[in-house]
Amino acid sequence: MLPFSRISIIGLGLIGSSIARAVRAHMPTVGITGYDADPAVRERAAELGIADDVTDTPGAAVTDADMVMLCVPVGAMREAGEAIAADLADGVVVSDVGSVKGSILDDLRAVLPPGVAIVPGHPVAGTENSGPDAGFAQLFHNRWCILTPDERTEAFAVERLSAFWSRLGANVEVMDPKHHDLVLAVTSHLPHLIAYTIVGTASDMESVTRSEVIKYSAGGFRDFTRIAASDPTMWRDVFLANKEAVLEMLQRFTEDMTALQRAIRWDDGDALFNLFSRTRAIRRSIIDQGQDDARPDFGRAHD
Amino acid sequence: MLPFSRISIIGLGLIGSSIARAVRAHMPTVGITGYDADPAVRERAAELGIADDVTDTPGAAVTDADMVMLCVPVGAMREAGEAIAADLADGVVVSDVGSVKGSILDDLRAVLPPGVAIVPGHPVAGTENSGPDAGFAQLFHNRWCILTPDERTEAFAVERLSAFWSRLGANVEVMDPKHHDLVLAVTSHLPHLIAYTIVGTASDMESVTRSEVIKYSAGGFRDFTRIAASDPTMWRDVFLANKEAVLEMLQRFTEDMTALQRAIRWDDGDALFNLFSRTRAIRRSIIDQGQDDARPDFGRAHD
Repeated sequence: MLPFSRISIIGLGLIGSSIARAVRAHMPTVGITGYDADPAVRERAAELGIADDVTDTPGAAVTDADMVMLCVPVGAMREAGEAIAADLADGVVVSDVGSVKGSILDDLRAVLPPGVAIVPGHPVAGTENSGPDAGFAQLFHNRWCILTPDERTEAFAVERLSAFWSRLGANVEVMDPKHHDLVLAVTSHLPHLIAYTIVGTASDMESVTRSEVIKYSAGGFRDFTRIAASDPTMWRDVFLANKEAVLEMLQRFTEDMTALQRAIRWDDGDALFNLFSRTRAIRRSIIDQGQDDARPDFGRAHD
Repeated sequence: MLPFSRISIIGLGLIGSSIARAVRAHMPTVGITGYDADPAVRERAAELGIADDVTDTPGAAVTDADMVMLCVPVGAMREAGEAIAADLADGVVVSDVGSVKGSILDDLRAVLPPGVAIVPGHPVAGTENSGPDAGFAQLFHNRWCILTPDERTEAFAVERLSAFWSRLGANVEVMDPKHHDLVLAVTSHLPHLIAYTIVGTASDMESVTRSEVIKYSAGGFRDFTRIAASDPTMWRDVFLANKEAVLEMLQRFTEDMTALQRAIRWDDGDALFNLFSRTRAIRRSIIDQGQDDARPDFGRAHD
C-alpha cells in the first residue's frame, strides 16, 4: 500500500527535486506535480523531467494531490501556504522540509483551511549545492527525517508521512517542535553560523592574502567552507526563525571559547589536552552510527 | 639525482610513517632509519616494515643519515633535537614537520651543532587519525609543503629539501617563519580550535542528549568533528607555541561572530544574507584550485 497516490512539490531546489527523484525511484506509480516561484527553475525542472507536470501556478500544482510538500525557505512558508490554501483538496496532508519547526507550524496553522492535516517535517540531509540540478534520489538514504506534529495533528496523517519518508530510505523520528529547534540549533544552525563567520574572518585579513587562505586550506579551513557555501536565503531565514535557540547556543559557545582562549593565554596545556581528548570520542560515535565515514572517500559512492 | 641517499625519521606517527611510505614508493633506493620514543610504536613500525631499520635510541637512527626529519609534536622538538645532536653527521640537513615554525627554528638553533643545516618545514596535509598504521604514501600528493629557512640557512640545503618534497608529490613554497605562523593560524589553528570548542559545547548540553547530537550530526555538526578528533598532544603544543597569532585570530573571529549575533538579535536579514553570499565564493575557489572536491566522494579514491 502506497502512503500517497499523487503528491505535489512546491519549490524545486535541492531538496524538492531530490524528493521528486526519490519518489520516481522508489514509488514509480505515484504522480508528481511540481511548482517553483522562479520561472527559470520551473523551466529547468520540466526539462529534467523530474515531475509529471510542472505547473505555472501553485494552485494548479496542488489540485487533486493527497500530499503537498512545501520545499521553500523557512521565511517563505507562510506565503507558500497562502498561495495554495484555496486549491487544497479536503483531507490532504500538508508537510514541509524546513530546518526550523516551531515557527512553521504556527505559520501554516494560520493560513491553511481546517480540513487539512498539517505534519511539519525536516529531513536532516543536504549538500552545499542549490537548484534543481543539484538534487539526487539517494540524498535521504540512511539519514534522519524528523516529524513534528502537535496535539492537534491526527495520528493517521503522521503514519502516512512516516511511511512516505521510510520508502525514500530515511529513518523517521517524531519529536516536539520546540525540542527539534533546540537540537538542530546545536547540530546544524550553530555549526553553519560558525562556518560562515570563520570563512568571513579569514577572507578579511590584511596581512594574509586570500590566495594564501585558499592555498593552505587543507590544514583544516576547507572543512568549514563546505557548509559556508550553503544557500544564503535558506540560512538567513533559519537564523531569524530560530533566533532564541540560536542565540542561546551562541552564548554557550562563546563562553567555552573564552575559557579556551584563557587557557592558551596562561599556558594551561592540561586544560587544552583534556578538552581535545574528550572531543575525539564524539567523532568515533558518529562514525560508529553511520552518520559519517572514516575512509578516505567518506564512504561516498563514485560516479 | 636523488636529493638524499639515507634519511632518518624521528617520530613514526601519522606523518612520519607517511613520509617513510612515500619515500619507499617514490625513491625506493633511499635508505630509511626510524625511531619513536614510544616502544609500542617502534615495535609496530618494525612489523609494518616501513623503514629498513627501527632503532632503540634516537642517536642510532641518525648516524650516517644525510637528512633527518623530526616528526614529533611541536613541544617535543627541542628535546628530540637534543637527543640526536651528538650523533649527527657533519653537513646533515635537519628538518621537521611541525605546524608552528618560529618557535621550532629557535629551539633547533639552540640545541643542534653548527655544522648542521636547519631547514624547518611544514607539509600542510594530514588526517584526524594518529599512529604508524594511519600513515599512507599518498598523503602529500598535490598538497603544499612550506619551508621556512631564515637568512642563516644555506640555499643548497633548501634546494635539496625542496626536491625531496617534490618527489613525494607535494608543491613546495618557501616562506618567512613568522608569516607562516600567521597564515596557518588562520587556515588551520583557528579552525581546529573552533572545531574543538563546538564539539565540546554540543556534548555539554543538558537539554539535548549526546545521542541526539550524534544522530542528527549530518546537519552540519559532523563536518567539525573530523578535525576535532585530531591528536590532542600535537594540538595542545601548536596552540601554546603559536600563542600570539592564535589569540589575535581568535579576537578577530569573536568580533565577527558578535556582529553576526547582533544581526540575528535585531532581525537584520540583509547583513546575514550579504555575509552568506560572500563566503560561497571562497568555497568555489578552493575547489577550483584542487584543495577540495565538490563530488560526493570529495574525489578521494576508494580502497
